[in-house]
Amino acid sequence: MKVDGTHYRTIWPDPDGRRVIILDQTLFPHRFETVALETVDEAAHAIRAMLVRGAPLIGATAAYGVALALRDDPSDQCLSRAIINLSGTRPTAINLRWALDRMQLRLAPLTPAERAAAAWREAATICDEDVAINAAIGDNGLPIIEGIAGKKGGAPVNILTHCNAGWLATVDWGTATAPIYKAHDKGIAVHVWVDETRPRNQGAFLTAWELGRHGVPHTVIVDNAGGHLMQHGRVDMVIVGTDRTTARGDVCNKIGTYLKALAARDNGVPFYVALPTPTIDWTVDDGVAGIPIEDRSGDEVRRIAGLAADGQVAAVDLLPPGSAAANPAFDVTPARLVTALITERGVVPATAEGVARLRPDV
Amino acid sequence: MKVDGTHYRTIWPDPDGRRVIILDQTLFPHRFETVALETVDEAAHAIRAMLVRGAPLIGATAAYGVALALRDDPSDQCLSRAIINLSGTRPTAINLRWALDRMQLRLAPLTPAERAAAAWREAATICDEDVAINAAIGDNGLPIIEGIAGKKGGAPVNILTHCNAGWLATVDWGTATAPIYKAHDKGIAVHVWVDETRPRNQGAFLTAWELGRHGVPHTVIVDNAGGHLMQHGRVDMVIVGTDRTTARGDVCNKIGTYLKALAARDNGVPFYVALPTPTIDWTVDDGVAGIPIEDRSGDEVRRIAGLAADGQVAAVDLLPPGSAAANPAFDVTPARLVTALITERGVVPATAEGVARLRPDV
Repeated sequence: MKVDGTHYRTIWPDPDGRRVIILDQTLFPHRFETVALETVDEAAHAIRAMLVRGAPLIGATAAYGVALALRDDPSDQCLSRAIINLSGTRPTAINLRWALDRMQLRLAPLTPAERAAAAWREAATICDEDVAINAAIGDNGLPIIEGIAGKKGGAPVNILTHCNAGWLATVDWGTATAPIYKAHDKGIAVHVWVDETRPRNQGAFLTAWELGRHGVPHTVIVDNAGGHLMQHGRVDMVIVGTDRTTARGDVCNKIGTYLKALAARDNGVPFYVALPTPTIDWTVDDGVAGIPIEDRSGDEVRRIAGLAADGQVAAVDLLPPGSAAANPAFDVTPARLVTALITERGVVPATAEGVARLRPDV
Repeated sequence: MKVDGTHYRTIWPDPDGRRVIILDQTLFPHRFETVALETVDEAAHAIRAMLVRGAPLIGATAAYGVALALRDDPSDQCLSRAIINLSGTRPTAINLRWALDRMQLRLAPLTPAERAAAAWREAATICDEDVAINAAIGDNGLPIIEGIAGKKGGAPVNILTHCNAGWLATVDWGTATAPIYKAHDKGIAVHVWVDETRPRNQGAFLTAWELGRHGVPHTVIVDNAGGHLMQHGRVDMVIVGTDRTTARGDVCNKIGTYLKALAARDNGVPFYVALPTPTIDWTVDDGVAGIPIEDRSGDEVRRIAGLAADGQVAAVDLLPPGSAAANPAFDVTPARLVTALITERGVVPATAEGVARLRPDV
């Protein structure tokens, strides 16, 4: 999407053919800087230190990491080493494993002389496919926004979102944001309520940043505010992303998503979840019982970083000495609270029957 | 309640008979300091600058402010000036108005020679009455916690609370915390999930501090986490306070309370609201339609203060430049989501019939 008028992806090969450029997302929202990755170790560091984050972008970065490794040494050993190195960077990221398996499968059968060029091509293809999937999610979600806009007679469609399922988490477009960008780019008036999304503030730090740079009107709110806004008719729809969707349509997403789904149901506000179908977990039905939730460090609750008066990014402590903090990172929104799933293959109800229409073999 | 073994109220007359001592709550949770108020202007400043906060404590501070004014000049003019001065400090605080009206009514008929002593006595009585009301709320709520404890065979009763309806908001005991302190002091195992309560973090800054200092086991969580904990049976009950309760039992409390009530209902977790009956607003039935919600400055969302690495309290910015922030301060939880109201006059259902039993004339 655009950053103050210039179109960017979150990752792209440098025209010099030797490097890969990313955005340093650890600096958002206070600074916008690109970083050139020259080696596989730099790519691994970018993933581990979360300069890049979001499952699709992590996969794309890993794929380019393999290409960087093979650029100067296309041997079998180098390929194996690169894949082992990269696969240890974020152990739980499914897209990372998937992208590396795909690179391995594509490159191992080739002669070393063919590998480097093929690796760059395959990484580019992985990126282009991600962009195409997200653009399709946008195209499929667009009519929902258009439908609401049609009833509002030109007044902005108010869309609430939680966390960052935006273009910064993907190669472009994002998932939850794709229909919003498509609507905005088409001239439909939209306004986004951005949950700040404690404790890591991805809403405030990333979603607000990317919406602002692309020119989409938005307002940041604390995570507590959405229910009140819905009670007063100030939210027309909710769109969120998901890390994992079960075969019956339960949705595992950033902690707090479930509370917004409850408020949406209580106030008759439609609650949509945008996802690429490859993230559906066909092995789980009941998400609350079946999806283990990561307990992250309480330090993420205890301490927060922001821009200090001296213009530097600084962290401050928020808790009394001696108080414990717990930090479950995700929650599960039961399918009964989800109006529909917006995917690259179409919009389906969040039911076992609806999700079954998205099976790869259908 | 206790601070590391020593019993405190939030306000008390200095034994020198000339000053009033308060805790500087703006320094919580990072520093614990008492402040001596010597003049009515200092009392007014303490209220205006939020060294004291919470409706009952604001009322008590105003009452003592009148006493400070009359100590050296018990004239009619001085009494009037003091009341005008104090009543402008927090225009929307109903307790402030109530306490000042009460001081005026009690003191105006007296001769100037009698006034100073009567003012100190009346302020002390206002404080003692607040303590007695909150202690009674605690006694009435205690059996609810005991009942759950009885079913848990010694395992801690997990109680979630939002914002600070603790002793720091009152003279002692608090409202929502009173049953918790009563249970803890009686040896019943309790554990409190403390919502940090963005944007002003009263949960993290005040509730966690006071529970910790009194020795009550507790864990701070982000406001997003409560629904997930309830889904997994890790919350036995919710107790919150309220700023205003309608005649049918709708509850206006800190923003985000409504979301917790929805999650409690969805998971069969009882949701209690603790309140002194004088805060019931008999003129309103439908809280969502009838209670105007204060929109506070977006700067409270944009900026947060905490303890910096150098040991100083510092504020950091959290939003991208150019992003707007909205900040509704309260929301309304409909009575249908409230299990019961815990008051100094007993526990009643949150229905028009239940609340009617609490009418002053009953």
